[in-house]
Amino acid sequence: MNKKNITENKNLGGQILLYGRHPVLAAINNSQRKISKIFCTKENLDEIKKILSQTKRNIPLNTIDRKDLDKMLPRDAVHQGFAIQCQELENYTLDEICRMADEKQNCHILLLDQVTDPQNIGAIIRSCVAFETLALILQDKNSPTESGAMAKASAGMIEQLPICRVTNLSRAISQLKDSGFWVIGMDGYATTYIDGINKTGKIAIVMGSEGKGMRRLVEENCDATVKLPIAPSVESLNVSTAAAIALYEINKK
Amino acid sequence: MNKKNITENKNLGGQILLYGRHPVLAAINNSQRKISKIFCTKENLDEIKKILSQTKRNIPLNTIDRKDLDKMLPRDAVHQGFAIQCQELENYTLDEICRMADEKQNCHILLLDQVTDPQNIGAIIRSCVAFETLALILQDKNSPTESGAMAKASAGMIEQLPICRVTNLSRAISQLKDSGFWVIGMDGYATTYIDGINKTGKIAIVMGSEGKGMRRLVEENCDATVKLPIAPSVESLNVSTAAAIALYEINKK
Repeated sequence: MNKKNITENKNLGGQILLYGRHPVLAAINNSQRKISKIFCTKENLDEIKKILSQTKRNIPLNTIDRKDLDKMLPRDAVHQGFAIQCQELENYTLDEICRMADEKQNCHILLLDQVTDPQNIGAIIRSCVAFETLALILQDKNSPTESGAMAKASAGMIEQLPICRVTNLSRAISQLKDSGFWVIGMDGYATTYIDGINKTGKIAIVMGSEGKGMRRLVEENCDATVKLPIAPSVESLNVSTAAAIALYEINKK
Repeated sequence: MNKKNITENKNLGGQILLYGRHPVLAAINNSQRKISKIFCTKENLDEIKKILSQTKRNIPLNTIDRKDLDKMLPRDAVHQGFAIQCQELENYTLDEICRMADEKQNCHILLLDQVTDPQNIGAIIRSCVAFETLALILQDKNSPTESGAMAKASAGMIEQLPICRVTNLSRAISQLKDSGFWVIGMDGYATTYIDGINKTGKIAIVMGSEGKGMRRLVEENCDATVKLPIAPSVESLNVSTAAAIALYEINKK
């Protein structure tokens, strides 16, 4: 988050700005998303009015010039003439996630350790929804809060995914194990490939950041570690790419 | 590419600037990469000197302040104190790619139609190298040329992947078929999933851009189309994510 953005967020009284066609339309479609203002350029007005009437939501709507929207948003934000000022979504608790899992025979969740880039997290959220991940769990400390960049990279899928922020990831892993999850860490040095694992039941996948990987204590708490089959000349994949492949493989029927 | 960058490139006499630790070290390690100048901050000097001595390359080396490097490079470029001024890599011809494939029993290549974002192409290059893709084929028109952003998103893997730019993608597909390739288009509306295909022999995967997809003529020229198994609520995956999963699946033993 750049300085300009931080200043703006202060002026928004704790609210955030989301932008871009997909994120804004998805947010309006999400009745859980508390939106205080919609901004759109003239040419997008009909589309916004239509969705407001479909959703029967009554949100103040402001027509705005493209240039003014440019100034309002972070530098280089691809807003496509759409923005909203809104509250962050409420996080789920780990207890809630475990209760959701209790009702399922087979399901998987994703835990991220040390992943700090909002765009990577947004891209991972999009893959989670695509591959039917039950929830995403982040360590509260060091994880970025919800933002326009994250929502944009998720293509609006942030509205659909239960996200839980925990104080201690290792402790969360222990609770997940108690709830019947089998916990698999992704680690380039593992000896088993991901497609070799048993995919039935409740599975929790843990991923560390590029370069740093999982912290030692987190990794030690996993039931097993697996890797992706990549060429030796490539040190690692981008974390959002690796997550997408892992979720694809886990979700495969 | 922003205005500043375009101006710079003009001043570089057709050369380009690459930046970031991985892209710069990979470029120096690539004897095919013609480099005219290296720029690095003081703290990176030893690392650069070591790699120059290992590779026995003699390239003018300039120590530079971080701030001056900031000014030299595009806004927000994460340069980590490393940059080079260099020639673009030479492209391969389609004939050369076909000859390389002739020597293989099993191999796969990737063709991109309408993908224009340099960062997506860079990320795809990284996945290509990770999953042993023989070559990447781009339509010359509408595809971005090599750039710092592309090399950075590829994490330096652009030095390892044969890239071919063709005038007409449909005609390239016909030539690939004549050379024994089975050509598969990725299309969200296909009826077959990608893991259902026969992975032996020579396979060419064709991907269109997010949203637009492949052009009709390109798709009609494919032997078959396949899709990825994604949830109905998700319109599409990011093109670099979809490419990574397709390449992972094709390359799986």
